[in-house]
Amino acid sequence: MASLGVGLIGSGYMGKCHALAWNGVAAIFGDVERPRLAVLAETSPELAVSRARELGFVRATADWRSLVSDREVDVVSITTPNAFHPEMAIAALEAGKHVWCEKPMATRLADAERMVEAARASGKVAVLGYNYIQNPMIRLIRRLLDEGRIGEVNHVRIEMDEDFMADPEALFFWKSEASSGHGALDDFGVHALSLLWVMFGGVRRVCGHMSRPYSDRPLAGGGRRAVETYDIASTLIELENGASGLIALNRSAWGRKGRLFVQLFGAKGTIVFDQERMNELQLYTVGDSETQGFRTILAAPHHPPYDKFIPAPGHGLGFNDLKVIECRELVGRIRGEAASLIDFEDGFRIERTVDAMARSAHSGTWVEVG
Amino acid sequence: MASLGVGLIGSGYMGKCHALAWNGVAAIFGDVERPRLAVLAETSPELAVSRARELGFVRATADWRSLVSDREVDVVSITTPNAFHPEMAIAALEAGKHVWCEKPMATRLADAERMVEAARASGKVAVLGYNYIQNPMIRLIRRLLDEGRIGEVNHVRIEMDEDFMADPEALFFWKSEASSGHGALDDFGVHALSLLWVMFGGVRRVCGHMSRPYSDRPLAGGGRRAVETYDIASTLIELENGASGLIALNRSAWGRKGRLFVQLFGAKGTIVFDQERMNELQLYTVGDSETQGFRTILAAPHHPPYDKFIPAPGHGLGFNDLKVIECRELVGRIRGEAASLIDFEDGFRIERTVDAMARSAHSGTWVEVG
Amino acid sequence: MASLGVGLIGSGYMGKCHALAWNGVAAIFGDVERPRLAVLAETSPELAVSRARELGFVRATADWRSLVSDREVDVVSITTPNAFHPEMAIAALEAGKHVWCEKPMATRLADAERMVEAARASGKVAVLGYNYIQNPMIRLIRRLLDEGRIGEVNHVRIEMDEDFMADPEALFFWKSEASSGHGALDDFGVHALSLLWVMFGGVRRVCGHMSRPYSDRPLAGGGRRAVETYDIASTLIELENGASGLIALNRSAWGRKGRLFVQLFGAKGTIVFDQERMNELQLYTVGDSETQGFRTILAAPHHPPYDKFIPAPGHGLGFNDLKVIECRELVGRIRGEAASLIDFEDGFRIERTVDAMARSAHSGTWVEVG
Amino acid sequence: MASLGVGLIGSGYMGKCHALAWNGVAAIFGDVERPRLAVLAETSPELAVSRARELGFVRATADWRSLVSDREVDVVSITTPNAFHPEMAIAALEAGKHVWCEKPMATRLADAERMVEAARASGKVAVLGYNYIQNPMIRLIRRLLDEGRIGEVNHVRIEMDEDFMADPEALFFWKSEASSGHGALDDFGVHALSLLWVMFGGVRRVCGHMSRPYSDRPLAGGGRRAVETYDIASTLIELENGASGLIALNRSAWGRKGRLFVQLFGAKGTIVFDQERMNELQLYTVGDSETQGFRTILAAPHHPPYDKFIPAPGHGLGFNDLKVIECRELVGRIRGEAASLIDFEDGFRIERTVDAMARSAHSGTWVEVG
Repeated sequence: MASLGVGLIGSGYMGKCHALAWNGVAAIFGDVERPRLAVLAETSPELAVSRARELGFVRATADWRSLVSDREVDVVSITTPNAFHPEMAIAALEAGKHVWCEKPMATRLADAERMVEAARASGKVAVLGYNYIQNPMIRLIRRLLDEGRIGEVNHVRIEMDEDFMADPEALFFWKSEASSGHGALDDFGVHALSLLWVMFGGVRRVCGHMSRPYSDRPLAGGGRRAVETYDIASTLIELENGASGLIALNRSAWGRKGRLFVQLFGAKGTIVFDQERMNELQLYTVGDSETQGFRTILAAPHHPPYDKFIPAPGHGLGFNDLKVIECRELVGRIRGEAASLIDFEDGFRIERTVDAMARSAHSGTWVEVG
Repeated sequence: MASLGVGLIGSGYMGKCHALAWNGVAAIFGDVERPRLAVLAETSPELAVSRARELGFVRATADWRSLVSDREVDVVSITTPNAFHPEMAIAALEAGKHVWCEKPMATRLADAERMVEAARASGKVAVLGYNYIQNPMIRLIRRLLDEGRIGEVNHVRIEMDEDFMADPEALFFWKSEASSGHGALDDFGVHALSLLWVMFGGVRRVCGHMSRPYSDRPLAGGGRRAVETYDIASTLIELENGASGLIALNRSAWGRKGRLFVQLFGAKGTIVFDQERMNELQLYTVGDSETQGFRTILAAPHHPPYDKFIPAPGHGLGFNDLKVIECRELVGRIRGEAASLIDFEDGFRIERTVDAMARSAHSGTWVEVG
Repeated sequence: MASLGVGLIGSGYMGKCHALAWNGVAAIFGDVERPRLAVLAETSPELAVSRARELGFVRATADWRSLVSDREVDVVSITTPNAFHPEMAIAALEAGKHVWCEKPMATRLADAERMVEAARASGKVAVLGYNYIQNPMIRLIRRLLDEGRIGEVNHVRIEMDEDFMADPEALFFWKSEASSGHGALDDFGVHALSLLWVMFGGVRRVCGHMSRPYSDRPLAGGGRRAVETYDIASTLIELENGASGLIALNRSAWGRKGRLFVQLFGAKGTIVFDQERMNELQLYTVGDSETQGFRTILAAPHHPPYDKFIPAPGHGLGFNDLKVIECRELVGRIRGEAASLIDFEDGFRIERTVDAMARSAHSGTWVEVG
Repeated sequence: MASLGVGLIGSGYMGKCHALAWNGVAAIFGDVERPRLAVLAETSPELAVSRARELGFVRATADWRSLVSDREVDVVSITTPNAFHPEMAIAALEAGKHVWCEKPMATRLADAERMVEAARASGKVAVLGYNYIQNPMIRLIRRLLDEGRIGEVNHVRIEMDEDFMADPEALFFWKSEASSGHGALDDFGVHALSLLWVMFGGVRRVCGHMSRPYSDRPLAGGGRRAVETYDIASTLIELENGASGLIALNRSAWGRKGRLFVQLFGAKGTIVFDQERMNELQLYTVGDSETQGFRTILAAPHHPPYDKFIPAPGHGLGFNDLKVIECRELVGRIRGEAASLIDFEDGFRIERTVDAMARSAHSGTWVEVG
């Protein structure tokens, strides 16, 4: 296959992450053509030029519309603020490009639906940046589940906690405005749901609760303003496969930095994973009673594609490496290979689940995801 | 104060635990009179005699009614199956004895209510064996909360998991019969609620869910029988103090042996505790950002009453030691001192909360505890 | 067998520990006669009376010599300062009593040797209080080793660290005087060696190093005094079975409270144990590569004699419980049963090893233990 | 500064690592010119061409001598087997190129010395690939030490354990041949010493021991061959700053994958680090006794240069990221900035220390490093 031409819109943290992935994917995997980093779009020509140089792109532009129709571009990485995703993704798909868009899809469900329709109409690859699912340890979990190593899973708990909203005296900013969404639910909930999706498929029904740890926050100019979003959200769930579970989210959890804690209980064992120790997995399987216990599995070359990064066990991948794996999956999908990704269809299902969780929290009743 | 005369009904594991506590409390604490181990009651005279000798009681009887009216007895330890608690506790209170009864109070809410009334009428001390609250680490948590070390708590998560019902091929036994109660909810939920009670007071409203990991179990004689109880129960809660939270219970959680995992999120920090490592506590408080992190506090003499057991830090108390602390609290309460205990009033509140959780799970709606 | 009559000399922390063990051993194990707590000796009649009441002894005396010859006494617990051990132990043995003496044996090697000779001459049971070896987790290690679960052990590391000497401004006290011994080596080294002894037998040769973290300490009355002992000691060792290893000791290790960290490397696996988490064990055995890892084994009823204390797994024994197990072993040895204990012969071997370690540290060469 | 032209010799794992670093350094750091990946040398023209394409190099050659004299090349990355380092590094330095050579320097001490002399004569930057020292957590340790956060360090323990030689039935290969060196000592010891070097400076004297867990290994063609190297090495050390310590190395340690365990004991606190959890640090400092404990610090943006990789805390760097940091340091050193690197002078000191450790192990005496 010929080398892919890449266009990147946005060069903040996630843009840098995409750029590093496009730069590294051939060297890391050794089985794909080195992509051509064709065009980078930013909000001003100056910024575009400077970032293109740093990130290794050949050309720069302040006009993202020219990027999505550029003949040198085969695939468009979209890493702009969420509100811009629908317009850009739809334009790129309509221009016949593949799209790699950061999550979540959009700020409104209707926009996400339009994106799905555009993807269907285009026949192009349209996927979302749910990189947690690319961790070799998550892949190991999926393999262990498929092999029945812990039997049929009957109960699932996922917690996601960080502390960037934990300080009650931090200034009011947009994440506390209702226009930004529900709060922890859409900010975090999609990650938990992406893991559930690849491990077990969809959520059937939900019963949620949301709360505000702090009722108001100081304003920069003095005075305080009421907080409109919910930094804490807890939801009881039933999966389509019949298992029960819960999802607990808190973005004001002091001391938690990137905790994404997963507990899977099955008829023959239990799996525990914590993203803060992303190179480890805890596995308990029924066995000899005298020496039974959770074993701590360290990421190693026999957990692909860890082997593509490091030939020795226990040395550790980093968060940014997950994006390189995602990039390799995307290239594979474009090539027509089987690939593990959250595409726009899957992503829309996740966003409908978030929507059901929020409606349930407001109504105080169980809601079918539908 | 004169030495207390002790009567013990039941000599199974918890009876042994009470006996060890009565035997050890004077030696451990050095500030109470050594109790007189007066009478032990068991189901047969032979068993009573043999157990009395082992456990250090002077006399033995197969007639618990004679024990509760014995002039040598000041306080009655009740460690029989739960169904017997009401009759025995009420008889002892009516005979003017103090009562130390194992949890839960009764198998029916109405019986628990009669026990509360008997306690009120007697004017005697009537307390329940909720020993997890006696852990010096739990006391430290309460002290840290009182001192505002983590600020106002706005969110609480408690998980309690064990694996004694995890094997799907274990024979059907009484814990799967509806007559035994709801399942994990009453079996475990009371422990979680006892911790909430001493830390924060009551629960205002609840929204629960219960599930069965296995629909049936094999019978000893062949064939299978449908499971009637719920080994898994998850509940969203709102505390009376306004905090949100959740309680997750699973008695079929492979690999969990005595996990009672507590996460308390406050405006200035976070506390995490796991009963499987009962001599440790994790504390995060806001501070110098470069070196912030959860600190692992090991139980030590400056965490009373650890000092009464061991003069050196980090050497570890055991589960049975908690009963000795509970015993010391009981002696203090009888003496008229302030003491940290779950009495019959508190216990009834806990059982009403469990009842609300079960009703909520059945109705699929939020229920006020009342 | 008739009930044993017990005499206790000393009622400090270890005396209390012995008393609790004698009080609890029958109730815990259910297979030994409840001992008669006959006489307690302390330094004054008043103290003796008061402590006898607390600890449950029938009589009290300020004359330990009368205790060791008392007809009611079959076995003497010696828990006085180390310097008194030889005289008391020898007197008790000569009076035909069994002896349970706290470690270490004596402050001088020659005295320890006299104790061994007295034990041999008496034909009585004479054992030392090395309670770490009684932990069910240590017994599990021994069983795993015997079963070859980690193959032949070829390398051993033991660290023992506490922080009671860590503060450089703590006042000079007797532990910094040369008369108290070498320092960490005899204070701690004996524990490490007791574990090595029961797991592997003796040490063949050693090469040691000792150092002082602080050269002097403040005196209560002003000024400073040079420290004469060594709070840190590290020793390279070769075991008699051919394995290599090292023992690292530090009693000025800030943050370590009761760390006794053991790593055993074998041809088929590895075992790791930390006394600060005394109810856990880490075991790695060669196996399926995808899911290999250290498993954390929690103490449970299938690790005898944990089952005698608690019928449920993962609930945890405490440090004081180890003394009860030691007491049960002692009763068994007196009865003529096989028992796991460090007797005076073994203890003397341990003390000779410590002596070799100190000589090696001074000479800077390898020393044969002999 | 103009963009650096890079030549890479060798494209195995470490070559790939260098290439990824050269590819990523500008994007990650944003403050250096994107290097020009000029020439890659491999053993055959075909391999060179294919690897150059994957790794992003413009030209390929099978003649490393042409590479080191290429006008497009400013700096040469040497990632070939150790035996080739001296010849290549010296040629590159003599051609006026900067050199970035993987550790260890050479297989013979005399060769390492020649490399130092060539570096001195050239006036060029000549550094070694000791990437563990680049971990932001190691930099945090250095900063904490400099700030006196744990006071003066008086004792140090470093363990390095892996299990790639742990299987006694693995076939004999070159690492068991005497010509490969001493064994664990040079294979691992240099990493431990690189950490000591950047934290504390040099080692004054050593007393070592080496052992063989397995005396022989099977040959591919049948029969067995005696093992000539030592997979285990333990060394007592005294640092030039007066602290005592020990270094324990084991490359046959089942279950250890990349353990590099560091314990630093100071007059005011303790630091513990484990490379298997490279994004964490344990810090204990003297303080409020009730809540004292080791705190687990997670890597975060306030631990530079973590912030250049990820803007959120607790998300984790990977092992390969350390090479990018090292690359940035190298560019800085070439620019004339202060940089944290092990240069040839430092590296030679490390290799002399290893040599002293080996001599000590053979003589059984203390050896001055000199």
